[in-house]
Amino acid sequence: MSEIIIHGVPGSPYVRMPLITCEEKGAPYRLSPMGMGDSRAPAHLARQPFGRIPAMEHGDFQLYEAQAIVRYIDQVCPGRSLTPADARARARMNQVMGIVDWYVMPSISSGLAFNRVIKPMFGMPVDEAAVAAALPQARTCVAALADILGDQTYFTGDAISLADIAAAAHLDFMPLFPEGRDMLTGSPLAAWLQRMMSRPSLQKTTMAALRAALEPQPA
Amino acid sequence: MSEIIIHGVPGSPYVRMPLITCEEKGAPYRLSPMGMGDSRAPAHLARQPFGRIPAMEHGDFQLYEAQAIVRYIDQVCPGRSLTPADARARARMNQVMGIVDWYVMPSISSGLAFNRVIKPMFGMPVDEAAVAAALPQARTCVAALADILGDQTYFTGDAISLADIAAAAHLDFMPLFPEGRDMLTGSPLAAWLQRMMSRPSLQKTTMAALRAALEPQPA
Repeated sequence: MSEIIIHGVPGSPYVRMPLITCEEKGAPYRLSPMGMGDSRAPAHLARQPFGRIPAMEHGDFQLYEAQAIVRYIDQVCPGRSLTPADARARARMNQVMGIVDWYVMPSISSGLAFNRVIKPMFGMPVDEAAVAAALPQARTCVAALADILGDQTYFTGDAISLADIAAAAHLDFMPLFPEGRDMLTGSPLAAWLQRMMSRPSLQKTTMAALRAALEPQPA
Repeated sequence: MSEIIIHGVPGSPYVRMPLITCEEKGAPYRLSPMGMGDSRAPAHLARQPFGRIPAMEHGDFQLYEAQAIVRYIDQVCPGRSLTPADARARARMNQVMGIVDWYVMPSISSGLAFNRVIKPMFGMPVDEAAVAAALPQARTCVAALADILGDQTYFTGDAISLADIAAAAHLDFMPLFPEGRDMLTGSPLAAWLQRMMSRPSLQKTTMAALRAALEPQPA
């Protein structure tokens, strides 16, 4: 099949979601890297009119919206399905993907990880008020996701699904800052996150791995 | 099949999504109505820990997150599927559902409709700055959705899908205020919205119809 091209900034959890999905499916893909400010440039606005990332090209088919992209890759690429067939398991997958978009993104990703991990990387001042404001919802996210995970290996049972990919792309920042480590302590999410982070699909798509792969190689 | 119970506030577009879906599937359902402030009450937080609506019960199965609920109803209820089988059509459906959540909700629903339609109903002051701030993204939403719709009858072709349901639940406020009418003028969304609003599934789930159905009947 033809190569899938993902346009986006390395390090973004939403850009990472389709990259992990391609890795899990064994699909040929390429990250077309963008800088932090490139999402408002005319070339990108032609692909994504809201100026957000990621955007996908697959042959003559263009698509934006991260959930739509990962569901499309799962459907068109050969390999084991990342969407359970059982209605209740699939409902839990979709619920986790919704929890990630509505609650994890504003609290754990934008509130905590952006301030504790990303901003210090770029020498930007940390907004402690935003960190404090994000904590209650972040704790509710961890409790709600742990409740769905229970004693299962992955969110929908023994095999990974798009739910694990969406959640791991956001939650793998948590061990990098004290509030995140505190919330994971004693939660079944801690062992789940270790399982996810040990998968090649996650290891090949960390911000560090993506940046290293993009650097010019010595001759 | 057993009755589907939807907990939520009549008038909320996210509560309306599963109600329209049940109507389109011909599934037995009941709205368990909540008041504006009930979403933070312990009884609801036990169903939905983030204090948002809707939440669903189907026999012993409980589920929250509007997208997960409508996808579940579509899968388990007999009747014509509201999810196209073709990968590109399904991708457009998922894309529209994403556009609704990420961009239509904050601009057209929270920014415009809440200030121009809902607040005046309850005698609350209109935030004109919020209206002005929402307009650019609202216009991008209308352009992006019109681009996907093109000259098709519905977002994914000749038959309605979950995309039409999600979008109509939010956009049907637009004819009720001047900025909304202006944006629809000359857009293919105007005729699409008329088609959607003429469907029994939409007519039976307007805020007025839901409220009338909940009122005590004369003896």
